[in-house]
Amino acid sequence: MYRIDLNSDLGESFGRYTLGLDDQIIPLVSSANIACGQHAGDPVVMRKTVRMAADAGVAIGAHPGYPDLQGFGRRDMNLSPDEAYAYLLYQIGALQAFCTAQGARLAHVKPHGQLYNRAAVDAELAAALAQAVHDADPSLVLVGLANGALVDAGRAQGLTTAEEFFMDRNYTDEGRLVSRNNPAALIRDEEQAIERVKQAIRDGAVLSVTGKLVNLHADTVCIHGDSPTALAFAARVRRALEEDGIAVKPVSA
Amino acid sequence: MYRIDLNSDLGESFGRYTLGLDDQIIPLVSSANIACGQHAGDPVVMRKTVRMAADAGVAIGAHPGYPDLQGFGRRDMNLSPDEAYAYLLYQIGALQAFCTAQGARLAHVKPHGQLYNRAAVDAELAAALAQAVHDADPSLVLVGLANGALVDAGRAQGLTTAEEFFMDRNYTDEGRLVSRNNPAALIRDEEQAIERVKQAIRDGAVLSVTGKLVNLHADTVCIHGDSPTALAFAARVRRALEEDGIAVKPVSA
Amino acid sequence: MYRIDLNSDLGESFGRYTLGLDDQIIPLVSSANIACGQHAGDPVVMRKTVRMAADAGVAIGAHPGYPDLQGFGRRDMNLSPDEAYAYLLYQIGALQAFCTAQGARLAHVKPHGQLYNRAAVDAELAAALAQAVHDADPSLVLVGLANGALVDAGRAQGLTTAEEFFMDRNYTDEGRLVSRNNPAALIRDEEQAIERVKQAIRDGAVLSVTGKLVNLHADTVCIHGDSPTALAFAARVRRALEEDGIAVKPVSA
Amino acid sequence: MYRIDLNSDLGESFGRYTLGLDDQIIPLVSSANIACGQHAGDPVVMRKTVRMAADAGVAIGAHPGYPDLQGFGRRDMNLSPDEAYAYLLYQIGALQAFCTAQGARLAHVKPHGQLYNRAAVDAELAAALAQAVHDADPSLVLVGLANGALVDAGRAQGLTTAEEFFMDRNYTDEGRLVSRNNPAALIRDEEQAIERVKQAIRDGAVLSVTGKLVNLHADTVCIHGDSPTALAFAARVRRALEEDGIAVKPVSA
Repeated sequence: MYRIDLNSDLGESFGRYTLGLDDQIIPLVSSANIACGQHAGDPVVMRKTVRMAADAGVAIGAHPGYPDLQGFGRRDMNLSPDEAYAYLLYQIGALQAFCTAQGARLAHVKPHGQLYNRAAVDAELAAALAQAVHDADPSLVLVGLANGALVDAGRAQGLTTAEEFFMDRNYTDEGRLVSRNNPAALIRDEEQAIERVKQAIRDGAVLSVTGKLVNLHADTVCIHGDSPTALAFAARVRRALEEDGIAVKPVSA
Repeated sequence: MYRIDLNSDLGESFGRYTLGLDDQIIPLVSSANIACGQHAGDPVVMRKTVRMAADAGVAIGAHPGYPDLQGFGRRDMNLSPDEAYAYLLYQIGALQAFCTAQGARLAHVKPHGQLYNRAAVDAELAAALAQAVHDADPSLVLVGLANGALVDAGRAQGLTTAEEFFMDRNYTDEGRLVSRNNPAALIRDEEQAIERVKQAIRDGAVLSVTGKLVNLHADTVCIHGDSPTALAFAARVRRALEEDGIAVKPVSA
Repeated sequence: MYRIDLNSDLGESFGRYTLGLDDQIIPLVSSANIACGQHAGDPVVMRKTVRMAADAGVAIGAHPGYPDLQGFGRRDMNLSPDEAYAYLLYQIGALQAFCTAQGARLAHVKPHGQLYNRAAVDAELAAALAQAVHDADPSLVLVGLANGALVDAGRAQGLTTAEEFFMDRNYTDEGRLVSRNNPAALIRDEEQAIERVKQAIRDGAVLSVTGKLVNLHADTVCIHGDSPTALAFAARVRRALEEDGIAVKPVSA
Repeated sequence: MYRIDLNSDLGESFGRYTLGLDDQIIPLVSSANIACGQHAGDPVVMRKTVRMAADAGVAIGAHPGYPDLQGFGRRDMNLSPDEAYAYLLYQIGALQAFCTAQGARLAHVKPHGQLYNRAAVDAELAAALAQAVHDADPSLVLVGLANGALVDAGRAQGLTTAEEFFMDRNYTDEGRLVSRNNPAALIRDEEQAIERVKQAIRDGAVLSVTGKLVNLHADTVCIHGDSPTALAFAARVRRALEEDGIAVKPVSA
């Protein structure tokens, strides 16, 4: 039987600032990636979000990012591997404590934003991140871009890895994301996006931007919950998958 | 046989900024309180300091503080109990991860600076901190000011607690620290300070600023390592205690 | 002819985080208090907000706060007068540069949140803030709580001051705000709130919570723009004042 | 008559953290570049450093950097031109206020660390920074790497510019700095370094790493004051220049 994990980035509020419709997206996903207080989130928000995810029976993951709240972790920063290792371990540990306090289990780690993007192409950074995940807890699942350097590094480290597929993005013939600077980067048709994710789940391949079939493993798919439109699409995706007999389950299950 | 713990606040460097002579004070103490990246310290420093303490066989503790690097955690901040709980859990968890990564054990928690001072007199804050320590790991030893609200809260929470004695400070008849605004706050004579700590260890009491004998339990004593003078005094204290047959051991041992 | 200033706290967004309906509240007020990047706001937001206010012909003021983004400047922090002076000067200067760059003039300064509250009752803090405003530019108008220590300090410093009135708050017989811990703190009836502000403008006095007439000078009134409800009330207040022949003008005009 | 400016990066302490021997280097230089609270420095330190520089009659400049205290502004960050513009204006304005408060004049701006390095090669970033300097005050002198994009952008903006020469670095045939990854990057011989700076001042040219004479304008030279060794070298450089009849004067004089 086919299966997929639907994951969403949660707990991105900070102090007085609210972001995301976390309570509405949680029932639609199987995994929650929770911000760890560096690019977004704060300890009060982390505690609350862990509780919400635990109550809903959703798998809990750390979503560590660059230490750049002002840039929301989306601006590239040139960290040394030692810095990246230490920043990751710090954030994972902080989230683990909230899980422990609530009797929940930290199940996976998915880097955020530009750290995620860079880890998909920079083997040295990827190795540092994989090492940090391993050193925090070798049973954690490491989530990275399908066909990217992070999942390679995770496997080399002996971790269970999960490959993330983006249903609203086009891919090159090499199975890489088409750059956002390219007008063909995005797939705007919802129906087409849903067909692509089904194909990736069943065939482990999708059509590239040039029409070539490329291998793309889809263990997990990112779902957004920051607007009513996004929520409606998330619900539609989940329904379409389940109607097609594809089970929605955490990568860590 | 009499025993005492000598503890020191370590890992207070941050990025390009260096503070403390950590490598020189570590051999003189039995417990290291390591800053957790909020009032001081950063992930790179935490990793390095945990390694130094573990290599030296010194007990490792978390030294969480207010989220105020500019004020070094020494300016009072009015946190709600929920905020204090979450900030403490966050910092303890982050340090735990560095211990786990290096096969070391987190043994105790001692709040820093104004958080420490306020937790000694504010029962509601103390309860929130004790709860956070318990929820992170109920086997952690909670270190607080002797006769203060934090050790009371720790006991109420079922935690092992350790009472900290300050050998360079005078105490009131009620066993409280004489305020630093009072000229009699400090004991400047080194010999006298050493005699006082011995007395506290053996008798569980010291003479107050008015000459009255007051109960003061000394499980642990704070030692500074931020200057050559401080280091020389630390060495002298340790020698004096050991020559007197008082064993220097972590509170967690 | 009677006059009043309607002021609003603006530019409180930060990076990816949006707060306030600034574009909708600006047309309803005469003065904009713009956050300066410490408790809220960032340089990109400051630039944009100064431009919006300048384009609308609204008076521009600095809205400096405690350096505590996580607490939104609403948690009390125990700053020394020297720290408070320096933090204020820093924030005022930063906002001045954005005004200069756009050919606009910085007209006033109104501290934010807990810094505002504490400056209303702490004469030493108030003096430090008034000195900073004076040293930045002695022509700046200093806005503080009516009957509070900050306006006293401003006058002692030779500054033009403006007293702020809260139409949705009750006052004690001494002309102080009734504490928010008291159930009688808030005036929830909009009609009554509007009558009170008119009375304060015309008579320089309002009825206290015990029914006594107390002197309360109202140079400026704070208006919120963070929700559609708040915007509707703001529009209603402005209309009511203008229909009553009360001119809405900046304190700095 | 020949002249040169000796500049030094000052005011890099932060809160409890002390960096640099500012009081000892100030008498040896003609220009002080003062950190502005983002990569280093804080408002209390800025105030104190402006006062020290003003008292010593040294020209005061802003030394703005990336908003990354943990990385000391030395890690590359990918800012948009709009972000870079706003961050620069913010920092310049903040420092201007401390100058104004003390009756001093802000004379120049020299970006710090990786912002400086990138502005030397990235024309778009350089243009944004030059625009910010112009918009803060068109009479400010913009200091950048000799032959770099920042001085080009400053000239295009109509600013007075100053080219900085590094006496301890080798240059390529194109007049660029030899990368620090290259073993030939540094000139370790003090005598040779001093001869090179004299040559640059008198001839507007130095020998490249391949032995070719390349044009290099030296308006100002950076001097370090963070160690006794650095201070001794600084004193030696100043003496050597003055004995050679080269006047030490600010670029802004």
